[in-house]
Amino acid sequence: KRQGFPEIVFGEGKSAEQIISIIKALRGKGNNVLVTRISKDKANLVQRVCAEFMYYDIAEILLWKNEENAKPDNLKGYINILCAGTSDLKVAEEAAITAEALGCNVNRIYDVGVAGIHRLFDHYEEIQQATVSVVVAGMEGALPSVIGGIVSHPVIAVPTSIGYGANFHGLSALLTMLNSCASGISVVNIDNGFGGAYNAALIYQLAQKGAEKE
Amino acid sequence: KRQGFPEIVFGEGKSAEQIISIIKALRGKGNNVLVTRISKDKANLVQRVCAEFMYYDIAEILLWKNEENAKPDNLKGYINILCAGTSDLKVAEEAAITAEALGCNVNRIYDVGVAGIHRLFDHYEEIQQATVSVVVAGMEGALPSVIGGIVSHPVIAVPTSIGYGANFHGLSALLTMLNSCASGISVVNIDNGFGGAYNAALIYQLAQKGAEKE
Amino acid sequence: KRQGFPEIVFGEGKSAEQIISIIKALRGKGNNVLVTRISKDKANLVQRVCAEFMYYDIAEILLWKNEENAKPDNLKGYINILCAGTSDLKVAEEAAITAEALGCNVNRIYDVGVAGIHRLFDHYEEIQQATVSVVVAGMEGALPSVIGGIVSHPVIAVPTSIGYGANFHGLSALLTMLNSCASGISVVNIDNGFGGAYNAALIYQLAQKGAEKE
Amino acid sequence: KRQGFPEIVFGEGKSAEQIISIIKALRGKGNNVLVTRISKDKANLVQRVCAEFMYYDIAEILLWKNEENAKPDNLKGYINILCAGTSDLKVAEEAAITAEALGCNVNRIYDVGVAGIHRLFDHYEEIQQATVSVVVAGMEGALPSVIGGIVSHPVIAVPTSIGYGANFHGLSALLTMLNSCASGISVVNIDNGFGGAYNAALIYQLAQKGAEKE
Amino acid sequence: KRQGFPEIVFGEGKSAEQIISIIKALRGKGNNVLVTRISKDKANLVQRVCAEFMYYDIAEILLWKNEENAKPDNLKGYINILCAGTSDLKVAEEAAITAEALGCNVNRIYDVGVAGIHRLFDHYEEIQQATVSVVVAGMEGALPSVIGGIVSHPVIAVPTSIGYGANFHGLSALLTMLNSCASGISVVNIDNGFGGAYNAALIYQLAQKGAEKE
Amino acid sequence: KRQGFPEIVFGEGKSAEQIISIIKALRGKGNNVLVTRISKDKANLVQRVCAEFMYYDIAEILLWKNEENAKPDNLKGYINILCAGTSDLKVAEEAAITAEALGCNVNRIYDVGVAGIHRLFDHYEEIQQATVSVVVAGMEGALPSVIGGIVSHPVIAVPTSIGYGANFHGLSALLTMLNSCASGISVVNIDNGFGGAYNAALIYQLAQKGAEKE
Amino acid sequence: KRQGFPEIVFGEGKSAEQIISIIKALRGKGNNVLVTRISKDKANLVQRVCAEFMYYDIAEILLWKNEENAKPDNLKGYINILCAGTSDLKVAEEAAITAEALGCNVNRIYDVGVAGIHRLFDHYEEIQQATVSVVVAGMEGALPSVIGGIVSHPVIAVPTSIGYGANFHGLSALLTMLNSCASGISVVNIDNGFGGAYNAALIYQLAQKGAEKE
Amino acid sequence: KRQGFPEIVFGEGKSAEQIISIIKALRGKGNNVLVTRISKDKANLVQRVCAEFMYYDIAEILLWKNEENAKPDNLKGYINILCAGTSDLKVAEEAAITAEALGCNVNRIYDVGVAGIHRLFDHYEEIQQATVSVVVAGMEGALPSVIGGIVSHPVIAVPTSIGYGANFHGLSALLTMLNSCASGISVVNIDNGFGGAYNAALIYQLAQKGAEKE
Ligand SMILES: Nc1ncnc2c1ncn2[C@@H]1O[C@H](COP(=O)(O)O)[C@@H](O)[C@H]1O
Ligand SMILES: Nc1ncnc2c1ncn2[C@@H]1O[C@H](COP(=O)(O)O)[C@@H](O)[C@H]1O
Ligand SMILES: Nc1ncnc2c1ncn2[C@@H]1O[C@H](COP(=O)(O)O)[C@@H](O)[C@H]1O
Ligand SMILES: Nc1ncnc2c1ncn2[C@@H]1O[C@H](COP(=O)(O)O)[C@@H](O)[C@H]1O
Ligand SMILES: [Mg+2]
Ligand SMILES: [Mg+2]
Ligand SMILES: [Mg+2]
Ligand SMILES: [Mg+2]
Ligand SMILES: [Mg+2]
Ligand SMILES: [Mg+2]
Ligand SMILES: [Mg+2]
Ligand SMILES: [Mg+2]
Repeated sequence: KRQGFPEIVFGEGKSAEQIISIIKALRGKGNNVLVTRISKDKANLVQRVCAEFMYYDIAEILLWKNEENAKPDNLKGYINILCAGTSDLKVAEEAAITAEALGCNVNRIYDVGVAGIHRLFDHYEEIQQATVSVVVAGMEGALPSVIGGIVSHPVIAVPTSIGYGANFHGLSALLTMLNSCASGISVVNIDNGFGGAYNAALIYQLAQKGAEKE
Repeated sequence: KRQGFPEIVFGEGKSAEQIISIIKALRGKGNNVLVTRISKDKANLVQRVCAEFMYYDIAEILLWKNEENAKPDNLKGYINILCAGTSDLKVAEEAAITAEALGCNVNRIYDVGVAGIHRLFDHYEEIQQATVSVVVAGMEGALPSVIGGIVSHPVIAVPTSIGYGANFHGLSALLTMLNSCASGISVVNIDNGFGGAYNAALIYQLAQKGAEKE
Repeated sequence: KRQGFPEIVFGEGKSAEQIISIIKALRGKGNNVLVTRISKDKANLVQRVCAEFMYYDIAEILLWKNEENAKPDNLKGYINILCAGTSDLKVAEEAAITAEALGCNVNRIYDVGVAGIHRLFDHYEEIQQATVSVVVAGMEGALPSVIGGIVSHPVIAVPTSIGYGANFHGLSALLTMLNSCASGISVVNIDNGFGGAYNAALIYQLAQKGAEKE
Repeated sequence: KRQGFPEIVFGEGKSAEQIISIIKALRGKGNNVLVTRISKDKANLVQRVCAEFMYYDIAEILLWKNEENAKPDNLKGYINILCAGTSDLKVAEEAAITAEALGCNVNRIYDVGVAGIHRLFDHYEEIQQATVSVVVAGMEGALPSVIGGIVSHPVIAVPTSIGYGANFHGLSALLTMLNSCASGISVVNIDNGFGGAYNAALIYQLAQKGAEKE
Repeated sequence: KRQGFPEIVFGEGKSAEQIISIIKALRGKGNNVLVTRISKDKANLVQRVCAEFMYYDIAEILLWKNEENAKPDNLKGYINILCAGTSDLKVAEEAAITAEALGCNVNRIYDVGVAGIHRLFDHYEEIQQATVSVVVAGMEGALPSVIGGIVSHPVIAVPTSIGYGANFHGLSALLTMLNSCASGISVVNIDNGFGGAYNAALIYQLAQKGAEKE
Repeated sequence: KRQGFPEIVFGEGKSAEQIISIIKALRGKGNNVLVTRISKDKANLVQRVCAEFMYYDIAEILLWKNEENAKPDNLKGYINILCAGTSDLKVAEEAAITAEALGCNVNRIYDVGVAGIHRLFDHYEEIQQATVSVVVAGMEGALPSVIGGIVSHPVIAVPTSIGYGANFHGLSALLTMLNSCASGISVVNIDNGFGGAYNAALIYQLAQKGAEKE
Repeated sequence: KRQGFPEIVFGEGKSAEQIISIIKALRGKGNNVLVTRISKDKANLVQRVCAEFMYYDIAEILLWKNEENAKPDNLKGYINILCAGTSDLKVAEEAAITAEALGCNVNRIYDVGVAGIHRLFDHYEEIQQATVSVVVAGMEGALPSVIGGIVSHPVIAVPTSIGYGANFHGLSALLTMLNSCASGISVVNIDNGFGGAYNAALIYQLAQKGAEKE
Repeated sequence: KRQGFPEIVFGEGKSAEQIISIIKALRGKGNNVLVTRISKDKANLVQRVCAEFMYYDIAEILLWKNEENAKPDNLKGYINILCAGTSDLKVAEEAAITAEALGCNVNRIYDVGVAGIHRLFDHYEEIQQATVSVVVAGMEGALPSVIGGIVSHPVIAVPTSIGYGANFHGLSALLTMLNSCASGISVVNIDNGFGGAYNAALIYQLAQKGAEKE
């Protein structure tokens, strides 16, 4: 496991009791502990026992940051998390909180949709200057193609299941991203904000250290 | 049938002989005659007998313009035909030649891809000022969403089968277009450049006349 | 944004509070405000605060018509909204209310199914004389093909998810419409009555003004 | 096997030699012999040895009618074989020749498409008065729904693989037919003209005899 | 509409009030009235007003048999309704009650599965002697192929959505039936017991009358 | 690798030269060598250099049986290879030759189709008495269900791509087999006769030895 | 039916009353009785009447072991049941309890995932020495390939529906297993732990007896 | 465009003449020029005119390395390109040559399949010590999951279309990779070796420079 990375628990399908017993065991290692896909109700049950955990509503993440693992204050660069608006917020926030928990600087840009390309240009500079971008998009999923065309850093595309009809629960956005004609884009599973951030964080950390120190 | 519109023959799966006998019959009506999806070889065979027909290589269209049906010279406005480059040219030209044969002014813009959004802005004004746009796109098929976001006229989206792998012969582009978050976009079948132009021409002609004269 | 068109809010997935705050902001611009896909319960909560809004039950639309934006009384022509019966009513009404909110004359014809072709012919004249038709159909989705064959104006086809078994949630109707052998048909997403009407309204307004005045 | 029915050989994937040896064996039984899906070249090789066989080009059927099995001349009623035009001719003729070989009167109506509903009404009476109809259709496959709506006898629907793009090799037409809102329609495999005719012939023969004589 | 056939109402998606008002109108014509896909609760509401209607629990059918339309007592032959057991009972009973309501003799055989081929042979004679068979099957949907191989009358195959996993809600059974190597099988939509019976009844009535009286 | 089993080379996509160099290396180990999916032409090129190899036309297998590895003559039991007829022969023979090369007794039964269930009962005893059965079937793929219902030994089902239309290149048969309601059936990839036989041979060898001697 | 095997009832979709009446009848035969896919609530209702039945929570199985059918104590070998962790536990336990009820020794290994290949090697010996393995896996379903590569006994692969997004309810794992490049793997339906165990038990029993005693 | 990166031409669907005229223009910029997906024949035609280009047979790449752009000799680290054997070689080499042309050190490991997990462990150290890995896999596509589980650097997964039957032209491998339970994996389109390498090269260059110098 990557040094300094938190212990990670996939909360979906686990009971509060199961999660409590897992995180009790993990906490001992001293690493931060990140529980994803945990509903508010379940999180509250866990927090009664593990009061040091903080819950992020939109992201549905439960996180314990061990104070000893403070994020270094000399981090260079940042990870963009981009999406078009409120519908994709849940997945974008799962990515953002995860990336922060993995020790990265994060820059949220949440109002840049393909159908309103002008807003995207208001953020032109900050989009380009990131180390890596995570682009979250539902419906037709075209945003990563546009971003990939204007940046020269790696883009991790995260399709979401937002949409209806011929969207087929995110299949439309997934195919769009896999077929992008922009270079430098790779794709993770539908709604997998965590995975998008994890890949971005690995890249971000490589850039931090530079190859010399490997 | 729309007045002044040409007679239309779908050439695919018909022999040169069958096409010759059909267009001989149609010519009598005095309308222009448009044969789509006809290969160069087949067209040459037809032209030996019907020398007045002209063949458009890229579009694979064979066309007879009866001189009596000259396009009026007081046409207002134009139809944009947009695509990203050489791969989608065949379908774009099928649309362009069809729209001209249906009596419309056509404005070709063939280098505006989503992955290089800057080139698109070089054509900003002329894109916006059209009466209607036909947007042809393969691979991820995101171009109509971008165009739809910057124009206030109707957009007819034509997915193409250009691509490979998870493109699934144009399915990817088709789904993208059906799920577009821009308003004012409707979609025709994969590779149906003819259909895209036909819809655009109906709209263009309505705009010509204005509702008053209906 | 098209001049004179209302502000549009997609209600699905937004809370009553979120909608209230959005429409309060939008109302300031003086344009009409149209909220689609909003359930009766949610609409009632909004209406307590924004009493000037009217709710359309079947369409699940909440609408504020600013009296200053009265529909001009010299409109020429109309948009047909056609469907086969009660099952597709929700989507047809979403289209009809939207088209009216976009300033168009609307002509509802709600009893013309493919399986009972005779009823369709009782409306023959009024179907043909429209400026543009929105055809809503579920199950096998064949109605747009039949309408497209008897009119010379543009047809916007809206597949619905009504059906069961091999219908696959509207996929059957969607494919039917994309493969129509009638010319002049373009398609929007499954259940997208709003989109069908939006496209039709763009065309209708073009026909109103005539190209001369653009 | 139904009494009086021919022996049937599925020619696809069998060599001329294999077919010759099979039909030599079958001929002994005295029944007519019907070979479907046999190309012209292969059929010619067979005919050199079995000169009494007749080849039907469009249907790609090779048939031996034993003179002793003459079709009774007091047959009541007939089977409609309907399609929209030249593209579906191969499948329609496979159905027509098969139905005749199975001892039925056949009435071909080959120019009735959904997109040109008027021509269909020119045949209104003869369509209705048949005992059973086989309706062959490609692209959107809507014809069986229209026919099913105007007749009160059984309709066997045969989707064809004619089309392109979102047609998916006949899937579109197949789904259309399975989802038909007209009652009295059942469906066979894509391009299975033989199967459509076989089902129709079983029904036709039941109607001939009447239940009393069973 | 077929003479003597009942008026038919598709109950799904209609409220009790809507159904009551429809059947009140229909009853006036004197024909029997058949309401399919109506839950027990909804049916009870209807029965409070229309007490002469009878509800069939398993089939979820509500039926009014006008005493004046008594089934003739000189019917020849019968329709088999076959299925493998309790899982497919609902669809089989929808078919059986429908066929009876359409004036046919019905023979239920509900314990003949492909995986226990022996039980099928206990019914060998009665299976073969029917006029037409409706074969209902879920999971792998192989029963119609086996029945089709041992009878010489028409078989209407009804796939059901019973199953899980790679069954894909009945797709597996549907494809099986469309690809059957037995001749004389045609297919209706998944779970469409009504449609299976309707087709069978049309055939049964043709056999009743015999062609002479047409 | 299982002791006594041959070395296996997947011939598809390898050139004659590549295959020659591979088998030269493998021959040294003394094991038999089995090359699957090798066309006749390619096999002939190989045989010029490796004359001791024998080619099986229908199975498209090239095999070297080292005389030192003679099949023991005290084998108990046998593997059934079942299919319905000529169309599935290639896959059935790939299975049969493979099973023999893996040192098993093989019993071919190649005329037992679901649509003609009677022929299957002529082989009733020999089908039941095998140690394990490999059942090869295309089109609707129902044969394994029927066999699985009458035997109490394991059945390996091999779907083939034989069929057309809604067969979707073997998908229909594959789904049928995965959804079988008979117990004791497991499935391998479409057209994977080799895999079917390999699984059967592993089971057969277990039965030979009996657990005691493991 | 295999001698000594229990009577098996598929509980899904049957009421407690139906199950009670079925098992009362079956119990008479003296065989053990195994009810699969029965929820805790339903099982409790059954146990009130049939108190001798034991319920297995995770597996959702209700089982009666007739004391007279004690498992022989001289069984050789065992069946591995392998999975990666808690998510696939339900299906793995359905397999394990079934295999035990079918009279087999079972060895559970529930912490061997593809993404943590090291843990798998801690169990290397016991994995290899089994008679047959049942490998349960969701998400990407790669575990059977890895196991198949290190054992020389048959592997029954059971895909589960665990996952989200592009998992498509187990389709991903199913396809992975069917396409495995390891030999000796066959596959059952998604979530079919019962079926996986049934196949394994048939093989296990063959190995017990050895071919000599058949 | 990334500084120092070559100009890239997608050769598929372009004629030799078109390619010649494009590369003549590009060469002027002084950057290296990389033409992907160009057949040997087409490449030879180009080389007659542009003799300084070198052709890579397996990768089907045509490359001009401007001597002035020599790869720096102080590169730290390397990119793994991993695949299981000869079938996936074409895609793996497209990735390897591309990565080298993009100025990266490349380490090819071409014999590590999931079904023979032992060979993978022979390369354990060199696999782990790379900066980033490109994992190419067809059939079940499970290799990236295994690699992702043992490395802590980013993995780019490239599914290939190698396989048959239920492989569905690479869909199986694509889904496997998207559903991987290992973290740190992202995916590109089927057969997109170029794209896999391009993403890896972006990451590799970030690691070279370290964030400080950005
Ligand atoms: N029923 C609908 N279906 C699809 N798109 C819609 C619908 N109603 C509104 N929209 C679109 O949603 C946009 C507003 O989305 P939002 O900003 O999320 O409220 C509008 O501009 C329309 O393009
Ligand atoms: N065109 C066709 N499409 C589908 N099935 C056919 C066709 N022609 C013949 N058959 C079937 O193939 C059977 C003969 O197959 P075979 O014994 O292989 O020659 C006949 O009994 C028919 O059921
Ligand atoms: N016809 C076949 N279908 C599927 N897999 C096969 C076939 N023949 C051989 N194989 C597998 O291919 C492996 C050899 O592949 P290769 O090393 O590429 O020659 C064998 O170990 C078998 O697992
Ligand atoms: N093998 C490949 N697969 C996918 N995309 C490629 C490949 N090779 C080149 N490209 C992309 O194609 C673009 C050039 O396309 P074009 O301008 O049509 O030659 C490059 O910038 C790449 O993004
Ligand atoms: Mg880029
Ligand atoms: Mg717009
Ligand atoms: Mg029209
Ligand atoms: Mg009818
Ligand atoms: Mg039959
Ligand atoms: Mg069995
Ligand atoms: Mg193995
Ligand atoms: Mg890793």
